[in-house]
Amino acid sequence: METEFVNWLLSGIPADPRLEVGPGDDAAVLRPPPLRRTVITVDMLSEGVDFLLGGNSTVEAVGHKALAVSLSDLAAMGSRPEAAFVAVCLPRHGGDASGRKLFAGIVTLAEKYGVTIAGGDTNSWDGPLVISVTAVGSVLPGKAWRRDGARPGDLLVVTGAFGGSFLGRHLAVTPRCREALVIAEQFTVHAAIDVSDGLSLDLSRLLSASGMGATINLSTLPIHADAVTMSRQPGDSRTPLEHALGDGEDFELILAMPPEAANQLVAASGTSMLNLPLTIIGEVTADQRLIAIDADGTAKPLKPQGFLHEF
Amino acid sequence: METEFVNWLLSGIPADPRLEVGPGDDAAVLRPPPLRRTVITVDMLSEGVDFLLGGNSTVEAVGHKALAVSLSDLAAMGSRPEAAFVAVCLPRHGGDASGRKLFAGIVTLAEKYGVTIAGGDTNSWDGPLVISVTAVGSVLPGKAWRRDGARPGDLLVVTGAFGGSFLGRHLAVTPRCREALVIAEQFTVHAAIDVSDGLSLDLSRLLSASGMGATINLSTLPIHADAVTMSRQPGDSRTPLEHALGDGEDFELILAMPPEAANQLVAASGTSMLNLPLTIIGEVTADQRLIAIDADGTAKPLKPQGFLHEF
Repeated sequence: METEFVNWLLSGIPADPRLEVGPGDDAAVLRPPPLRRTVITVDMLSEGVDFLLGGNSTVEAVGHKALAVSLSDLAAMGSRPEAAFVAVCLPRHGGDASGRKLFAGIVTLAEKYGVTIAGGDTNSWDGPLVISVTAVGSVLPGKAWRRDGARPGDLLVVTGAFGGSFLGRHLAVTPRCREALVIAEQFTVHAAIDVSDGLSLDLSRLLSASGMGATINLSTLPIHADAVTMSRQPGDSRTPLEHALGDGEDFELILAMPPEAANQLVAASGTSMLNLPLTIIGEVTADQRLIAIDADGTAKPLKPQGFLHEF
Repeated sequence: METEFVNWLLSGIPADPRLEVGPGDDAAVLRPPPLRRTVITVDMLSEGVDFLLGGNSTVEAVGHKALAVSLSDLAAMGSRPEAAFVAVCLPRHGGDASGRKLFAGIVTLAEKYGVTIAGGDTNSWDGPLVISVTAVGSVLPGKAWRRDGARPGDLLVVTGAFGGSFLGRHLAVTPRCREALVIAEQFTVHAAIDVSDGLSLDLSRLLSASGMGATINLSTLPIHADAVTMSRQPGDSRTPLEHALGDGEDFELILAMPPEAANQLVAASGTSMLNLPLTIIGEVTADQRLIAIDADGTAKPLKPQGFLHEF
């Protein structure tokens, strides 16, 4: 029942100096870090659309994912994660047990990323599981990575590899928060976005916001082993490259950076500073088209692919 | 479709100086007002539990309510509303039209209360309408009204009148933001809560958080005319007083205040400063029981009544 569940929740959340008033009141009161801006994002996930329950897709994994995708947005702003708020509609039958598992997944990730759970809202109903996480971060004034700052000649750098996330990475999301902070501290980034809906689709969003286009070298695109595995599955008609460009849910970052900064960053990617592959995939152009260059040098327009809600 | 809908949304939201980065990026960047704390609350509403669609219960009204209940939480903290984030699951069929109506209801209220819509998340699915609003306010350090600050001898003051909200006020919620700010500026408030689930239930939460009890004078409780109307409906077995104590969704404030402050505030309630009835309904006691005193002076324990999610 709601009261017991909320009391259980509150008892598991450690006090945090960033909160003047913690969870359990009508609202939380946060002490904004001095001289920093407050970064806020919200993501809502629903059963049947963003996840299916069963198999590896446990309720804990959903809790993990729900927080992770919001933290990925904070990473895409070059901001430091601070706090999160969790609103849920739990199924009326078995809601207490699934709520506890859901929060176990959330709290484990929150601790790992130094995020305090500052509040939320617990509801029940006869429908499927719905969870909405509001994540709060901080960033220095004027230093947030926007989508609209890409300039002609900027190189496009991506973290990690793409495609086939539905084999498991779409749940076991690793938000690139630590990497974003290291990069933000040491390199100039003109624009950034995280890949939730599809590499080519999210890239096109960054370019469109910036009023720019780009040429992408398809032969340099880091393709995840999962993309290869998926393309070999019976009935799958797409190439690994197509999976990489359109699958989405990779939760890697696309960064538009001045060429020197991009090259320095990629050179540093093998070091202990950034234990993550970083790849230059193309260049920002004033010509607003998105052009793909094949391995043989052929250039053709690249149609953005990815997930969009239909309604 | 998502892209067109989000573009329509963004085009209708005016720029706001409180936002360094506005809606449409991975996250919003807020400029926290200097020397103030950030207050954050989230409320999720779902079709079939928090509202039914049909008749007066339009999608616009649901949008209004969804923002209003979060603003009511900000009022209950004595904080000034600043920004809101809106996450929705829209029904796949007709979602575009209902999404536009939903946001019309939100934006109208946001403008009225000086709230900037700073971001959100738009989803679709085959399920009922779900909406989660994160509201952001600001307050001076140490000045937020908490639930846990009530002291023995404090008088309990309520705004407005209670009961029968389901005749329409549960949708046409008027959050007491302006009143809260006037009171916070001029009077000492030890503890506060807004009445969402039931006057007696929410009062018991404030008292429990404070480690206190109270005596309530039932004869002084402000009973709304709607409570009288509901109690006269065929099949309704509850008195107007019972409706007032347990219906909930009144979204009025309960304030625990030192006696002089409470008396001064109630005396000021007829003036233009606070164009809202304010009533002293009882007194906080160190004895942790909640006691109701009848019109004839009989004292008996008052069992908290109201809405709780069962799961």
